[in-house]
Amino acid sequence: MGPALSTRSQQIVAGYASVAANFDVEKLHREQGVNIPTSGASINQCPHAAAARAAARMADDLASAAAAKKSLDAKGSLAGRPVHHKAATESTKAKHTGFDYEAFYKGELAKKHQDKSYRYFNNINRLARKFPVAHTANPRDEVEVWCSNDYLGMGNNPVVLETMHRTLDKYGHGAGGTRNIAGNGAMHLGLERELAGLHRKEAALVFSSCYVANDATLSTLGTKLPGCVIFSDTMNHASMIQGMRHSTAKRVIFKHNDLEDLETKLQQYPKETPKIIAFESVYSMCGSIGPVKEICDLAEQYGAITFLDEVHAVGLYGPRGAGVAEHLDYDAHLAAGSSPDPIPGSVMDRIDIITGTLGKSYGAVGGYIAGSEEFVDMIRSYAPGFIFTTSLPPATVAGARASIVYQSEYLGDRQLKQINVREVKRRLAELDIPVVPGSSHIVPVLVGDAALARAASDKLLSEHDIYVQAINYPTVARGEERLRITVTPRHTMEQMEGLIRSLNQVFEELNINRLSDWKLAGGRAGVGIPGAADDVQPIWTDEQIGLLNGTAPRSLRNAEKSVVDMRAVTIARSRFDVLLGPVYGELQPTEDFDTPAVGATFKAPLVDREVAHGITVSA
Amino acid sequence: MGPALSTRSQQIVAGYASVAANFDVEKLHREQGVNIPTSGASINQCPHAAAARAAARMADDLASAAAAKKSLDAKGSLAGRPVHHKAATESTKAKHTGFDYEAFYKGELAKKHQDKSYRYFNNINRLARKFPVAHTANPRDEVEVWCSNDYLGMGNNPVVLETMHRTLDKYGHGAGGTRNIAGNGAMHLGLERELAGLHRKEAALVFSSCYVANDATLSTLGTKLPGCVIFSDTMNHASMIQGMRHSTAKRVIFKHNDLEDLETKLQQYPKETPKIIAFESVYSMCGSIGPVKEICDLAEQYGAITFLDEVHAVGLYGPRGAGVAEHLDYDAHLAAGSSPDPIPGSVMDRIDIITGTLGKSYGAVGGYIAGSEEFVDMIRSYAPGFIFTTSLPPATVAGARASIVYQSEYLGDRQLKQINVREVKRRLAELDIPVVPGSSHIVPVLVGDAALARAASDKLLSEHDIYVQAINYPTVARGEERLRITVTPRHTMEQMEGLIRSLNQVFEELNINRLSDWKLAGGRAGVGIPGAADDVQPIWTDEQIGLLNGTAPRSLRNAEKSVVDMRAVTIARSRFDVLLGPVYGELQPTEDFDTPAVGATFKAPLVDREVAHGITVSA
Repeated sequence: MGPALSTRSQQIVAGYASVAANFDVEKLHREQGVNIPTSGASINQCPHAAAARAAARMADDLASAAAAKKSLDAKGSLAGRPVHHKAATESTKAKHTGFDYEAFYKGELAKKHQDKSYRYFNNINRLARKFPVAHTANPRDEVEVWCSNDYLGMGNNPVVLETMHRTLDKYGHGAGGTRNIAGNGAMHLGLERELAGLHRKEAALVFSSCYVANDATLSTLGTKLPGCVIFSDTMNHASMIQGMRHSTAKRVIFKHNDLEDLETKLQQYPKETPKIIAFESVYSMCGSIGPVKEICDLAEQYGAITFLDEVHAVGLYGPRGAGVAEHLDYDAHLAAGSSPDPIPGSVMDRIDIITGTLGKSYGAVGGYIAGSEEFVDMIRSYAPGFIFTTSLPPATVAGARASIVYQSEYLGDRQLKQINVREVKRRLAELDIPVVPGSSHIVPVLVGDAALARAASDKLLSEHDIYVQAINYPTVARGEERLRITVTPRHTMEQMEGLIRSLNQVFEELNINRLSDWKLAGGRAGVGIPGAADDVQPIWTDEQIGLLNGTAPRSLRNAEKSVVDMRAVTIARSRFDVLLGPVYGELQPTEDFDTPAVGATFKAPLVDREVAHGITVSA
Repeated sequence: MGPALSTRSQQIVAGYASVAANFDVEKLHREQGVNIPTSGASINQCPHAAAARAAARMADDLASAAAAKKSLDAKGSLAGRPVHHKAATESTKAKHTGFDYEAFYKGELAKKHQDKSYRYFNNINRLARKFPVAHTANPRDEVEVWCSNDYLGMGNNPVVLETMHRTLDKYGHGAGGTRNIAGNGAMHLGLERELAGLHRKEAALVFSSCYVANDATLSTLGTKLPGCVIFSDTMNHASMIQGMRHSTAKRVIFKHNDLEDLETKLQQYPKETPKIIAFESVYSMCGSIGPVKEICDLAEQYGAITFLDEVHAVGLYGPRGAGVAEHLDYDAHLAAGSSPDPIPGSVMDRIDIITGTLGKSYGAVGGYIAGSEEFVDMIRSYAPGFIFTTSLPPATVAGARASIVYQSEYLGDRQLKQINVREVKRRLAELDIPVVPGSSHIVPVLVGDAALARAASDKLLSEHDIYVQAINYPTVARGEERLRITVTPRHTMEQMEGLIRSLNQVFEELNINRLSDWKLAGGRAGVGIPGAADDVQPIWTDEQIGLLNGTAPRSLRNAEKSVVDMRAVTIARSRFDVLLGPVYGELQPTEDFDTPAVGATFKAPLVDREVAHGITVSA
């Protein structure tokens, strides 16, 4: 629907709204036998006026979609301003004398506009049944998403959705309170047990988000530990920086992934001084991987504890998706299977504190910490950001748990993701398109200029139906602006081809620096710097991906259905036998997935069911 | 199932797990025709071993339930420690030399045990179809919940659940990114438009929680405004306190609801100094209500802006549930209906910043701010707690929006809640049970001792199947420990009678101070202090509740179904016509609700549907 038609519909609806509101409602009521309470009644209690208002509200939605169409690129970039309603009536806010607050806000916004860091949100609605496709502000206008952190497409995995539907039906929506007051249930405890087991730690604790987990944990720990010093990688995420700022601890920043710099700084404090080394496993904007094992060595030597953010790694690395720390002892963890016991001396065991998210690879929302019993219990007991907030809904935590279990039992998505990432990186290299070198799944395409990055993103969206958000300051340094591409196991060969072709064309049209240009210019952000990419090898080896023995999964072709591993589904389902009752049989069929009946591939042993029946209330 | 049987089941399952893990799996495979990839295969890829592990995991769940039964009160208080797994294998964490971190954590926990502020979480699973009933760690063990902040039972309102199911099917689970990167969709924008309209403000912004909203907004604003001074009510919530601490602003604390003290403190700063008065409308632990209008007067006089936390008020006060600020101009807002325009000079219009939650009356999760376009846009552009975090799932925000619309269009729940609160307060007064005086819906029963409050809560749970969490330090001051009762429109007369009877018995058995005892002792926390309760009148008047004209709803009796207002349902549904397609007909029937077919009570005008069809993609 074009802008004209959209505007017309809007007028029709708005017109109806005003007509209906002034209609002879009493007559209508009499004719239809509608009973309106007489006393205290107002126009607002009338169902017909209500319908008019509903129509007016719908006009509002239409107007918003129409505004999206009016924007230059027709995909709603300019519609992304969060102004929902400019009042017709003037409010009294302008009355303030003294300091002029509104002018101050305007000034702060002007700064953002001036330095091009003002953000317009794209309106992106990812469709569960068309992954990785989303619709924009206009439900008819579809684009491919190439920058979401739903890294594996678990947000629409059928066992996740099945679990959530069942949990919603049984436990409703919100948790209804803080963990201490009515908001602590078996679903929350079950998820925390699952997470503790995943990381082979004694305990885990779930927060509203990993932003909150990092902030609350580092600020609480840094404040509590007497005279604490926190050593922080210069590329650490904003949430960790906030946590350190909010603590009373001294903060010492070391160069990104620079062990020498870290050691020099550690040496300056007595061994008895409490120290935290805070770092990440996968740095999300450059795709580099932290030297986890070596940092453990330094921590041991200098009496520090390690705080490892695995936010962009959980679900994606390790044989069970526990992250990079697990990946570094791949075979040992594979052999140990789902045992929750630590593997003494393994890198994951040597890390004191792991933080992770449920909102990226696991396709949900929320964050967590995992560590020793006493550590977790202390944070639980002292961190205001954990204590004084409503806990996550049961359906959310159940969906997250189903996702974790599925991924810990099925390797194929992790392998296929790496295969597709390699393919995209290989093709970009062929076309001389500059990618920041890294061992992870992140594909950061360097643009090196804020306006150009924005223009490239807009062009991809409006002319190629490809959505890759431009990443500008403050998320990356000025001059290092980029297009951050995320490739999933669910992107098809054809979609990858289309992405590469479109990117190449946009680079051509906007005359963006190629890799060879950066080489000539001396390089930037690790791109085109002699030797910088030499020892960068993907952390997933050919063997781990299954390339050596022919067990590697194959990239999808268009119209081909995604694989659902029914064994992993069965195990994920079984986690909820006690609370939701056992479920067997087919998953809800979708166009996207190949979902055979359970019986065809794998039958759970009978005893399993009997036990389940023995302890749950029969329906 | 008793502890013995539970333990036995656990042994059976655990036994099976170990047998299966050592089973002749190859033989099993051959018999059942299961195909296991030969290369890279391990015991962990075998479905039968997997089933065994699943069974072992279930044993874990059973063990947790069994542990709950072993606790003194048989309801799981002692099982509420969040230790999910004590490792059989010793991890390397003990190897640290230098500072002894584990001993430090233990010491911090010992402090909590020593001063009785260590918290054991009760395992409470609120059942959507049995509201207000929940099961404990044992799914067979049911209790009545009397302390949840799902104040209206919207967590299981059928139109909320219907909307969520539909959204899950269409958009999947997680948002997949931050608002700036792939995590901003029409559902988020629609909710923010709804919230702006509810508060008749220009804009609104949604956060992970209202804890985050308060923290991020106050810290950003307090830091940005040059030389800012924040005036904070002494009873303000932890999230506001954190926000102020995290800002660089000076914090001046004024006595709870004390206008004189506030004015004295405001006078000490020039009118040009940027100032924020931060306060709440309903103080959740004492049930008092802030002098909103009078604070607006002072703000105007001294050039301050007002920051009003309506967390415990939204959904519950005002003709549309916009909160206490709306309630103070009840008739004007009722007359204005669903118009999003401000009512100049009204209290709600004079408030600069309103913050609220989606996690209490609206039965969801998340928080928000509402205010002027420039203010909201500035927070959106600068607050790290908003920028750097995954946005809420589409289904969550859709459920919240459905809830808000339903409540803004239906007054009955708000009225009936007040009727039931009055009934409970009246009966408690009759029995000389001390309630902290207040004008709101909160019923704080004073106990005045941490151990006694805990004992009373445990007794109610274990002997009366009634769950009311004891509220101890640091949530309330030492010596002011209480049982905080929340009464909903869905509690029946019989349940209220049972609560009062049980409370009275527990007060008797534990010899807890009655109101007359506190009077003799000179009073505490507003209880038994001469004159303290004299001018405390409920903010909902008899007229507003419908008591004067006989339109007041009637408390439910056991087995009676709750009312679902189909007019409000129809309007709530219509908000999603554009994105989810129109839906008509019956709601999913539940045992709890009286859900007539839509046609029987109210038919939406045809034009409404045509327009909807015109703009959505046909299914």
